[in-house]
Order: sequence, then C-alpha cells, then structure tokens
Amino acid sequence: MYYPLRLITIRQHYFLSKPLVRFLSNKTNDEIVPTLLTQHLKVKPVTMLTASRSPGYVASPHSKLQSMIWSNPIRNVFITKKPGTTTTREAMVKFITHLHDSYPEINVIVQPPVISEISNDFKTFPEQNPNHPHVLFTGENEDIVTKTDLMVTLGGDGTILHAVSMFHDMQVPPVLAFSLGTLGFLLPFDFSEHEVVFNQVMNSRAKCLHRTRLECFIVRKNDPKKISKLVSVHAMNDIFLHRGNAPYLAYLDVFIDGEYLTRTTADGIALATPTGSTAYSLSAGGSIVSPLVPSILLTPICPRSLSFRPLILPHSSHVKIRISTKSTYNLENNKINLSIDGRPYDSLDVGDEIHVINETGTIYLNGSELPPEYNSPDLFKRKSKIKYSGIYCVAKTENDWSLGINELLGFNSSFRFKPAKTKNDKPSNCSFEE
Amino acid sequence: MYYPLRLITIRQHYFLSKPLVRFLSNKTNDEIVPTLLTQHLKVKPVTMLTASRSPGYVASPHSKLQSMIWSNPIRNVFITKKPGTTTTREAMVKFITHLHDSYPEINVIVQPPVISEISNDFKTFPEQNPNHPHVLFTGENEDIVTKTDLMVTLGGDGTILHAVSMFHDMQVPPVLAFSLGTLGFLLPFDFSEHEVVFNQVMNSRAKCLHRTRLECFIVRKNDPKKISKLVSVHAMNDIFLHRGNAPYLAYLDVFIDGEYLTRTTADGIALATPTGSTAYSLSAGGSIVSPLVPSILLTPICPRSLSFRPLILPHSSHVKIRISTKSTYNLENNKINLSIDGRPYDSLDVGDEIHVINETGTIYLNGSELPPEYNSPDLFKRKSKIKYSGIYCVAKTENDWSLGINELLGFNSSFRFKPAKTKNDKPSNCSFEE
Amino acid sequence: MYYPLRLITIRQHYFLSKPLVRFLSNKTNDEIVPTLLTQHLKVKPVTMLTASRSPGYVASPHSKLQSMIWSNPIRNVFITKKPGTTTTREAMVKFITHLHDSYPEINVIVQPPVISEISNDFKTFPEQNPNHPHVLFTGENEDIVTKTDLMVTLGGDGTILHAVSMFHDMQVPPVLAFSLGTLGFLLPFDFSEHEVVFNQVMNSRAKCLHRTRLECFIVRKNDPKKISKLVSVHAMNDIFLHRGNAPYLAYLDVFIDGEYLTRTTADGIALATPTGSTAYSLSAGGSIVSPLVPSILLTPICPRSLSFRPLILPHSSHVKIRISTKSTYNLENNKINLSIDGRPYDSLDVGDEIHVINETGTIYLNGSELPPEYNSPDLFKRKSKIKYSGIYCVAKTENDWSLGINELLGFNSSFRFKPAKTKNDKPSNCSFEE
Amino acid sequence: MYYPLRLITIRQHYFLSKPLVRFLSNKTNDEIVPTLLTQHLKVKPVTMLTASRSPGYVASPHSKLQSMIWSNPIRNVFITKKPGTTTTREAMVKFITHLHDSYPEINVIVQPPVISEISNDFKTFPEQNPNHPHVLFTGENEDIVTKTDLMVTLGGDGTILHAVSMFHDMQVPPVLAFSLGTLGFLLPFDFSEHEVVFNQVMNSRAKCLHRTRLECFIVRKNDPKKISKLVSVHAMNDIFLHRGNAPYLAYLDVFIDGEYLTRTTADGIALATPTGSTAYSLSAGGSIVSPLVPSILLTPICPRSLSFRPLILPHSSHVKIRISTKSTYNLENNKINLSIDGRPYDSLDVGDEIHVINETGTIYLNGSELPPEYNSPDLFKRKSKIKYSGIYCVAKTENDWSLGINELLGFNSSFRFKPAKTKNDKPSNCSFEE
Repeated sequence: MYYPLRLITIRQHYFLSKPLVRFLSNKTNDEIVPTLLTQHLKVKPVTMLTASRSPGYVASPHSKLQSMIWSNPIRNVFITKKPGTTTTREAMVKFITHLHDSYPEINVIVQPPVISEISNDFKTFPEQNPNHPHVLFTGENEDIVTKTDLMVTLGGDGTILHAVSMFHDMQVPPVLAFSLGTLGFLLPFDFSEHEVVFNQVMNSRAKCLHRTRLECFIVRKNDPKKISKLVSVHAMNDIFLHRGNAPYLAYLDVFIDGEYLTRTTADGIALATPTGSTAYSLSAGGSIVSPLVPSILLTPICPRSLSFRPLILPHSSHVKIRISTKSTYNLENNKINLSIDGRPYDSLDVGDEIHVINETGTIYLNGSELPPEYNSPDLFKRKSKIKYSGIYCVAKTENDWSLGINELLGFNSSFRFKPAKTKNDKPSNCSFEE
Repeated sequence: MYYPLRLITIRQHYFLSKPLVRFLSNKTNDEIVPTLLTQHLKVKPVTMLTASRSPGYVASPHSKLQSMIWSNPIRNVFITKKPGTTTTREAMVKFITHLHDSYPEINVIVQPPVISEISNDFKTFPEQNPNHPHVLFTGENEDIVTKTDLMVTLGGDGTILHAVSMFHDMQVPPVLAFSLGTLGFLLPFDFSEHEVVFNQVMNSRAKCLHRTRLECFIVRKNDPKKISKLVSVHAMNDIFLHRGNAPYLAYLDVFIDGEYLTRTTADGIALATPTGSTAYSLSAGGSIVSPLVPSILLTPICPRSLSFRPLILPHSSHVKIRISTKSTYNLENNKINLSIDGRPYDSLDVGDEIHVINETGTIYLNGSELPPEYNSPDLFKRKSKIKYSGIYCVAKTENDWSLGINELLGFNSSFRFKPAKTKNDKPSNCSFEE
Repeated sequence: MYYPLRLITIRQHYFLSKPLVRFLSNKTNDEIVPTLLTQHLKVKPVTMLTASRSPGYVASPHSKLQSMIWSNPIRNVFITKKPGTTTTREAMVKFITHLHDSYPEINVIVQPPVISEISNDFKTFPEQNPNHPHVLFTGENEDIVTKTDLMVTLGGDGTILHAVSMFHDMQVPPVLAFSLGTLGFLLPFDFSEHEVVFNQVMNSRAKCLHRTRLECFIVRKNDPKKISKLVSVHAMNDIFLHRGNAPYLAYLDVFIDGEYLTRTTADGIALATPTGSTAYSLSAGGSIVSPLVPSILLTPICPRSLSFRPLILPHSSHVKIRISTKSTYNLENNKINLSIDGRPYDSLDVGDEIHVINETGTIYLNGSELPPEYNSPDLFKRKSKIKYSGIYCVAKTENDWSLGINELLGFNSSFRFKPAKTKNDKPSNCSFEE
Repeated sequence: MYYPLRLITIRQHYFLSKPLVRFLSNKTNDEIVPTLLTQHLKVKPVTMLTASRSPGYVASPHSKLQSMIWSNPIRNVFITKKPGTTTTREAMVKFITHLHDSYPEINVIVQPPVISEISNDFKTFPEQNPNHPHVLFTGENEDIVTKTDLMVTLGGDGTILHAVSMFHDMQVPPVLAFSLGTLGFLLPFDFSEHEVVFNQVMNSRAKCLHRTRLECFIVRKNDPKKISKLVSVHAMNDIFLHRGNAPYLAYLDVFIDGEYLTRTTADGIALATPTGSTAYSLSAGGSIVSPLVPSILLTPICPRSLSFRPLILPHSSHVKIRISTKSTYNLENNKINLSIDGRPYDSLDVGDEIHVINETGTIYLNGSELPPEYNSPDLFKRKSKIKYSGIYCVAKTENDWSLGINELLGFNSSFRFKPAKTKNDKPSNCSFEE
C-alpha cells in the first residue's frame, strides 16, 4: 500500500509467467496447488508452511552482541533481493541452490516477482533430490511475514530497509544481509562468505547486533472516533514531518512525555533511531549515535532558530508532535507530509498529531497503556504483542559500526595535503604540511 | 591538590578565627576536642561521626526517577555553599538553624572556611537545646567524604560540580541542591522550598534523577611501571584534551573498545556524560543528551576536518585516546592539556594515553578487568568498589530536564518579530510576520 | 501571477465598492475618467501620472550608507501595506492625510484593494484643498511600477518583500519602510517617526543602505528554442531548489563560472543574497552576511554529506545548477521545486537548469553577455537595462544591521543563569555562575 | 622575533660554513665584501642591490584575475623554501641554476640558512658565465624585504605563509608558489612547470589572484601612553584570541565600527581573511569564503551560546575586541592568547584591546585616520604607506579556488556506497544504493 514509487515502477516491469499468474490467481481458493513453472522449478504456496519460529537471544557481559540460539531448527528462510540487477539475480540463484543442496530441510520463500526473475536460471535439479525440481514457496506479503524464521537480503541497505518494512506492524525475524559489492551501514558480510556464514547461523554460532525500532501512531483531529483512525507503523530509520511543497514553514509543537517542550517553525522534524542517525538525521545536522545507545533522536530540519540543537532523548520517551499553524494562514494550505522510513504517508492537517515511542513502549505505555492525556485505554493498544522488539542483525565483528562510519561516511576525513593516491589514514605518523 | 584557581584564591581570603585554627591544628592529635568558637557556636571533629550510610534507590516502571528510601535514618548532612556571597551565607545559617531546631538528631558537617564565614551569624541557641550552642562538625575533606549521608548545596551548578568533585574517587552521596536566585541545569529547587523538600528527603518521599559519571585513567608512556602511574578520576561533566597554549594542533588517535577509530588533528577532544552535554561539549557543537540516555559523548574541538560529526557512544564503551604527533615536530612542544570537570591536570606527552569508561565499567572491564591489549589485570583495578555509581540528584518533577534546557539555553528561541516584552513562547498561535 | 497563496486568499475577501469596480473595468478604455468613490475620496488612473524618476545616490568615504539626492522633486509615492490589519489601515489613512495636507504636489498611489479597505476612513477634505476630496491614483500593478518614484511600506519584512517583488524584472524605487509594532531586519523606523523621516527623504537628507538582488534564469532542456523559454526573475532574499514532496533526494550539479564544482545529493540548495542570509539560508546552516559584503551565498539544504560547508561566492559569479538524477530512477518522479523569494515557480525536470547571477551581471555577462558555453548572445539578454541595480533602503543609522541581528535573531544569546527579567546583555560585567 | 617554534628549532640545526659566518659577521661593517663559499658559489650582500620595484596590476572585466605588468624588468628574485627536505633542496638548486643560465640579469636572493643547505650542490659554473661561480645575495631579513621584486616559494602553504610574514608590516611582493608534491590551497603550480611559468611572469604574461590581508593593532590598557604600545601586524590567514591554558572561558566584548555588537563567553574568537576561511575558521565552523569576496570573517571558537552563528563582515569594518572578565575572577588569571597567522604574541590582559581592519583601511580610517572613540590622530597611523595592499599570487586558471576546495578539503564528499577504488565524483550519473 505504501510502496515507494521506485519499487512500484520496477515491479510493473516484471514479466510473470503464465503458470505463476495462474498460481497466484488461485491464492483465494481453499485448495492451492503447487505449480510447475519450468522443468527444474516448482512453486508452492507459502501458506502451506508452519508458522514462523523465533530464536532466543543471549547477552554476554563480554560482548556488545547477542548470541542467536535456535532451540528449534530454522525451517523457513525468506530471501529478498534488490530488484533488477544481474549480480543479485545470480547471487539469489546461487544461494537458493546452495540451500537446496546442503540443507534439504530448509524451505525457501521468495516474493512472486523474484520467481519470474530467476525462473529460467535453474538448469539442474538439487543434488539432494536428483529427480525433483527446485521448490520455492511464495504468496502474498501478508502470508510470507507469518512464516519467516530467518530473512536473508541480497543487495544494499535499501534492500534491508524495504524487507524489514514488510514487518512494519509485527516482530521482525533475524536479518542476515549480504553485500554484492555495494557498501552499507548494515552490510557486514560479502556474498562470497555466504556458505560459511549461513552455516554459523544454522548452528547457533552467529551473533547479532540489536537495533531498535520506533513506533508511530497517527491521531487525526477531525475524527469523532479518534481510535478508529489510529495507525501504527514501525520504523527502522526514521519518522519525519516535512512541509514538502507547501510554501510556508511548518509550525510544530513538540511534547515529551505529555509535557510541552517547544514549538518549532521549520521545514520539519526528524525522529530517528540510532540506526537512522546516519540517514536523514545526519543530513539535518544530527549526531552519529551508536545502535547500542538506547535513545530517540529529535533533529530539527532547517529550523527558523539559531538555537535548536539536536536532542538525544531517552528510549522510553513518548514524543508527541502536533501540527500547528499561524493564525493568519489559510488552514487548507497547511498540509504536512509524513514519511516513515522514506515512504510517504497521508499528509497531516492542523491539529493532527503523531505519537512516537520506542517499539518496546514507554514508561507510561508499559504501565497504563496510554499517555496521561488520553482517556481511552485502547488508544495505543497494539495490534499484536511483540516478544522480541527491534531488529536482530547478524554481525561479523564487535566493531562493525566503527568500521562502517569510517568507510561509508568519510567520517573525519583529513584535508588532503598529499595527492590522493598516497593518502594514508592509518594511525601512523603522517607528515603533511600545514 | 587540583582545586580550580578561583577557589584557591578565594579561600586564602577567609579569615579563620583563632579557636578554629587551634581546632584544625589539633587534627593530627589522637585526641581531638570540641572547640567553642563563639558563645552560640561549637565545632567538633567530623571524625567523631559514624561512617556514611547510603539510601536505597527504587525504580518504577511509571517514572523516570527513582525513589530514595532511607532504611537507616539520615544522620550526617554535609552542607556546602558557593563561597563569598551574602545570599548563600544567610541561606546557610538559616538552613543550619532549621536543621538544629527541627531535626536535633542530624549532624551538620561543613568545611572550615564556611565556619569562619558564618561563625558570627549565630546569635541564638537552637530551640531544641536552649542552653547549648549550635554544633558544627568539620575536618579535612578526606574525612568529610567518609561521613556524609546526604549532601546539600547552596549556590549554582558550579557549587554542585565542586562538591561532587570531593568524591572524585568514591561513591557520591545523594545531592540536594538549592538555588539562590541563580538558574542552573542541576537546580530544581529554590531555597524558599528548603523546609518542605528536606522533610520529604528525610521521610523517604523524595525522588532522584540518576546521572552517570565517567572515569578517566591516565597511562604514561615513559613510565617503566605503567601501573604505578595510573590515576583514576571520576567526572560528572566532561574530560577533555586540548592543545592549550601550544602553537600546533593536537594529533589524537582515538580507539573504541581496543580498535582504532580515527585520528583527529584538532584543538582537542571532549568526552562528556549526558550531564556534560550542556557544558563544553555543547560549545564544541555536540548534541543535547538527556541524562537518562546511557552514553558517552565524543565531541571534537575545532577539528581540521569538515566531517568529524560528534559521536554518541554506548555507555559501556572503553575510549582510549593516545597523544600522537607529526613526525617533523619537536616532541617537547607537544604537551596536551587534560581537564577533568574543568580542573587542569598534568599535561600529557606524545605516547601518553587516557582511558575513559563509564564509572560502572565496560563490557571488557566488568568481565576481565582489562581491555584486551593490556596484560596486567591490575591495570584498571579501582581503588574502591562503588556500590551506587553515578550521582543521585533529588528531583522536583519528572521533566526538570525539559524545563532546564528551555529556560537556560534559550533552546530553540524564535526570532523575535514582536518587541521583547510581548514575546510569547507558549504553544498558542503567535502571529509574527515573516 | 506568482502571488503567494496567502495574499491571493486575502484579496478575494476584499469588498470592492461599485464605483471602484466601474473605475477598474474602464481601464481598457482610451479615456479613463476619475471616479468619486465617496464624498471625500476620488480615484484617478495611475496611467495619468508622469513616468517614474530616480534619485541619485552619493557614496561617502566616511559612511557605509549612500546619500539619496533628488535632483527632480519626488512626485509619485506608492504606498503599500500589510493587508487586513487595523493598525496598518489606520496608519495608511494617517500617512495619506499627512501627505495631502503637507505636500499637495505629491501624488499618492495605492493598489485597488487598499482603496476598498480605506475608502470609508476619509471623513474630511485635505487641509490644502478644503473643497476637494482626497485623490488616490490606482491601476494595474504593471502600470503602478512604471510611475513610482518612491515606495513606502507599512507592515513587516514580508510587506517589503512583497512590494519589491512587483519590480521583479525592473529597477526598484527607493524603499521607505515603517514598522507598526512588528520588528524586522528591514524595518529601521517606527511609524511614529513618519512625518520627520518623510520630510528628510523629500529634502534629500536621507541615507540609504544598498542591498543587492540576484537574477535567476530558467533554461528548459526539452525546449527546441531554448531562448524563448528563458525566464528571468530578480530575488531580494533567495532562490532555492528543493525536492518538496518527492520521496527521493535531489541530485544537483553545481557549476561556477562554467566550471563544475560539485554534485550534491540533498533536499536542495539555496542561493541567497546577503539580505537573505538571515532567511532560509540561516535555517539551513549558513553564515550571517552583512548586506555590504558583495557576494552570493550557496547553502546546501540537508545534504547527504558530512562535508558540504556553506560557500560565500563572489558577487560576480555565474552559478549554474543542473537537475540531475540517479540512473535507476524513474525520470517522471524527479520534479524539483523552484522558489524565488518564497514564491513557488514551475517545477524543473532532469536536465533543466537555473542560472543565477547578481543583478549587476557577471564578469562574463558584462562583457560578452553570455557565459562561455552558450552560443547565442541573446540567451541572457535582459528585458530592460537597469541603471541602479539592487534595492536602496532608507536607513536610520550606520549600524541598523548590527542592531537587527542582535534584537531579532537572539544572536549569541547567553545561557541564562539569572531569571529572565534581570537578564542583562549589556557589556558591563555580569556575574552569573557557571 | 616571532618565528614559530618549529622554524627556530630547525634553524639551529643548520650548519653554517666558516666563510658564511664570516660574511654574516661582517654585515655591520660599512664595507661588505663578497665571499667565495665554494669554487662554484659566491655570496654577496643583499644590501648591494637596488631597491625593490613593483609591477602594475591590470583588472579586466572578463577575468577574476589581474594581469601583472612589469614596466621595469624584474631584477631581484627572493627564493624561499620549506626547510630540511631533500626535494625542496634539489628544486632550489635546479631553479637557481635555471635562472643563472637563462636570465643572467636576475639577482637571486636567499636566506643564510638556505646557503648553508645548498652550498655544496653547485658543481658547475653558470652556462652564461663559464668562468664565474654562481652568485647568491643574502643578508638580514630586514634587508631582504626591501630588495625583493618577486618572491618564489618552494614547498607548501606553510612556506608561503612564513615567507609572506616577513613582510608583516610592509607591502608584499608578488608570490610565485611551486608545489613539490604537496597539495595546497595556494599552490597552483607543480615544480615541473617552473621554466614555463617563470618565463610568463618575466614577460608580463602572468595573471594574479589578489588576496587581502588584515591588520591588527594591539592597545594596552595599562599603558599611560597608549600610542607607544601600538603594535601593527598584518595577517594573511587569521588573527585569533584564545584562552589557551586558562581554566576559564574568555569574556570578549565585540565592537563593529565603534558600536557594541555582542559579548561572547567562549574559548575565543577568530578573525579571518577569505584566504583564512579554510584555515582555523573552518575548524571552528565558519563558512568557506572565496578570496574574491571582500570581507572579514568573525567566527566564534566554542562559544557558550547556541546562537553565535559565524558572521561575514564588510571588508571596511573596524572590529574591536576588548578582553573582559567575570567580576568574581582573579584578574591575574585572565590572560588571553593572541595568535596572528599561527604565531603566538604577548598575551592580553583584561581591558586590553585588539583592533582589526583590512589592510586597505576602513571607512573611518581612510578619512579621519582614526575610529571615533580615539582622539589622537596618530593612534592608528601606519609605519609605512602601502601602495598595493594584500597579496598578489600568480594563478594558473580562473578557477584555482574551486579546484582547491574540492581536492583539498574533501568538500562535499559523498557517502561511499561503492568500494573506494571505483568511487567516481564526476558529474556523470553514479548509481549507488541508498
């Protein structure tokens, strides 16, 4: 419903084979039957699979990471990829083939467009089942998310962001992300390592970095039954309000834990997770925050003030932002855009509010289930209880984050007083002239 | 030893009465006797008192604050004041008189210069003991700190910073801070409230905001026995390295948890607690961090780079900074200044290091007691184990912090398009013209 | 055509009297006759007046300001006001009455909606012509601008910005701006001073601060005859490109004087005059530039880079910005918004360019009339030659600017360690506690 | 007198040959005789040469640069080098040999340590004088500066800064700077181009970029005869006040053109030329200013304010900064350091002032020779009138500056989502993933 425009466009280009169309159009029938796409590839409905199972996560006093322990073995692996590139298509086929050959008990789930994209690349039967075609499970996103034990992404940070957003109102399965040449903040592993790393994950020898998500509730002013209009979306990076095309600056009143903090006249405001501190918040002037710092970043976007320094709020904060206005403005022209993880949502009007909390809840929500100003206990009731909040990302080393900010951001890059090729950022004594 | 210059200067101006000098000069004798300073004031040695006792702190899921519960009643109250002002002197006398009148079981501790300053202000006997003079306990700082159950400060943020620094290598007693007209980030209470607030504290009805401290170890390169030169100091606000008077920029290599992060060429680097995020780190461009966000701020000071954005590190981080140099520099001119909570320490030479951790330890220190690169388990052993790390500050409301940044920093102050007296920062619709 | 939305809305609310409607509907006739609106007010067509005349401006080595010398006396004064407020309406009537009484030779020009607004406020005849009604001249904006010798504004900075924009493709008459309580960067005089100040202006005893304008040319890629689509607009504050509602960041290639400088991936870019340095550029992080510094500010808006520091370019620069794109994007979704002095213009597509120069031209334009890359000498030809470029604003003191940034921006406001009412920013020794 | 420490140290290491020592020790005699240092090298006193002559500079409406026209041919070329490196020594010998061979009429001037450094590198006689040794002119700096027609530097930006500082109270000769591998903002030419470029300069075919200098006057409070203590120093980059080792922040009152602007509580303040905008001012958060923008940058250093945005002041400004204090401070501890182009000067006390103007004077100084508050016309009288103020630097292209900020600062460097070696900053469409 809220796909970014790029993805919609690209999906329309996919050629779906006739058997796949038939398979998908059957999805509403009670009896969905497997479909043979090619001699070497068969598609089954994802609804056939058992419900998803979570690993346990064990912290250690000597590690920033948590060990991921599978008391029940992994069964259903959902693989997603950056669309439309040859390298990710080839990697996808290679990875599926490896799973089918080495782990016949694993069920591979993919989205329908991926099947179209890769169906002709399977030229052999799996080694483990020499007379049977490769089997892929697919179906609607709403079904895939209920079956996924582990998510594997092939692409860049955007691929992860997109995949995680499929779970925007529920628990996210652990994420194992492979890079295909692209660098990314969330990409510790190169695809060349996929066999070794997957084996570690399967055998509960992998460690995870825990990243928090934010949860955003939208409360409409002009709705007689406020509750019915509550929308809750979970964000991995950020939630931001922006005036967009409006010729006026936004007037936004900010409340923390039910108390007024400030009004800002600005292009907008970004609320970010530490993961999102290197995304839009950084562009707006925010600090870089380690994903291990439990916090919510409040960063103004081009404020009409010399003194609105970015804030780092406690992770337990309940941040409310209410759309306000200048009295002399025409109210109709005060639409404010809402974006969550880069996706545009319905714009907000004067009087509308967003409420942003950490996915794990606030000191108020955990206890009373609502902030003091609301009288309905159902107002912020969540659709589903989440056991493991946030996102567990399989990590390579304890210091992926330091490496990432150095490599990706050009963080603290020196002025170059030597020609670029002899530049040396190592901590040896360099000898440039001032 | 490390008093800021201002305080040294001011203390020299104190006139110490002869009896007080005699009392203090007796301090090395085994038998210290109380001394009558004036008809209404008697001084006793603080060493007579029982050892300090801590309250318990109880967290609640519905509060950002912790309840302070005294299972053993408060006995010894150490009162400190901003030196040299009439308002704090009068408040000090008023507060002591109130304690002696209303809580005869309380022992009041003050530092010797305070006694000189206030001795002639006591004109009556305490109500509770109509024939006895007021009794004050005093002695060396090293003795005062071992006896204090509760610390009361009369003055500004600087007074608190100074008082807390007396406990720079040990547990800090809870802090009850009163403002005397001055505003401050750490000053929720006006002195006019002192009777009510002290009563709440006595009866375990007060709540505390917990603030973390940093611990700084200095490791000298040219010391054959590194360990013996280890100095550990605890900081409430910040620890910073700065080139000071040196004509060259500092070259500082930064390591996080034993791994190299970056080298900065800069005036220096500030490492700050969230409490210190509104002090020097703010001037250097750092974000404002709520004291409830467990973290260490790393903020560069005038770096020679366009891209050294301030960092918010996990509170469990072990930050090492090593003084480096340009190869062509004369090493003797590369002294780097170290300041901890604004106090200057011995300068550092090339090769020297500071190690900064949260007072509660790091993931490495808690476990193995040392970072991976050091082979002596005693290297970072602390002088004393601290049960309650950080500083518990008696709070007025859940939102003291929001109020503080608004009032004190002029945070996000609007451009004024109305004359100042009609300026209205409230969240009502204001109508300035753009 | 490009009125900001607010003004359009407000104008629709004006009630135009029948005689005024008749008068305006006659405007296309050859013979336009004066119309009696009320007993005391008569309207004449502005086209009757003689063409506008400019003063001379004389610089002095001892002043930052220029003396405004009228060799031909002022005849036609165009008065404009902030719409819809009682204070400006009353001031308008007072000011017009004063002119009619004291300077019968002056012709007062106003816009039609102003006539409707004030027509019933004239209850007496002018003192100088006891039997004749007050006469106001009015007509289309395109006629008013050709007749105006001096422009007077009653309102705030926005009123000036709007009035100046009427002259967006021609020379601006000198501006005399009165504040009605509102503060503003461009508002040295309070309305209470209007009689004295106007007299000084009339008698060539006033001094002006010269402010530069920028000129923006829009070059469309997909136009076979590039030249015909060239639009030139002059800006007092700023010209900015912004992605607006687009979900992607803008890709903008920046060229200075025909040479590539950088590509930015950002929300947008602002190009500002020094006058505009306290407007949107300031929100985006730009420096504050004195109007006396001949320069063009290039300030990125939320760039995806840690190291895009704002630039101050020479006033003679020719800045070209070309809309670029990521190859994988759908081109249709890459519309970039263009705003000039806050007014939205037609959005730009990939390949389109804006060219921004100072109104006085560049080192290339002055000589060859075109930048090196263009082969048509007509490409940047201006509609009309401008003798006095920029805007001459009547000034009160040599230091209006310093006063302005202090009063309006809360520039360098100290942290308040005294309660607000006793705050003292004067250069005496204040004594707050740190 | 104010050499930076590094250079003093290095100079002490120079081995001066006996004949050179004898030559130098003769300098006070009336009759100074040439001295044969080696068979191929002879030294003559610089005082023998004719006084320095300036070229004329001709601006063009089509260029940002000025043509350098020598109506009298260049005679005396002063060559300076970065000390102690083999590459600059070899380049120096090569350059001198080229001049002696190709331009026998040119007199080469060097400083005494350079002679020691290169004396044994001359193994042949000049081609033009096959039986005569190479002749170098040398002497005291105060004599060299009066004889130099053109200055050539071999090294980096620091070498230029040092060479220009020899002319800190007089007109600077045109500067021709060659890089020896090092990059620099002021280094358009590689040494490999020296023959071609020098020929262009000799034949008046070179163009110059004009860079302004600032002039700093120091006024001591406690000097009965203020005038006698006036020191004037010219700065190419910046003048800054800094608290240095002081434990307190500096209190600095800033006045522009005799009017109070603001008081800052800060580490200090930097006043910079546009050339210096990429030096310390940049580290402190200042904008990047083109050298063609006539202006003075005022950049606060770690101010205790959220709202002290850097200022760009008119080049005609008279900036006065007075050292102030907190009333409760001990005045003796309020020494503030003054640095001019990186060199430390005597520190300032409370009440002392610096006055900074552009070398070309201010609107007040040009007229009345003093700012309004001073009553002695001699107060700001300069030692010598300067015909061509600022520094004319031989330029390679019109856009050296744009190239410089891109190459040296890593200005606006993109986040790298491709491995570094395939990174492409060109304005083609790059395709990284977000």
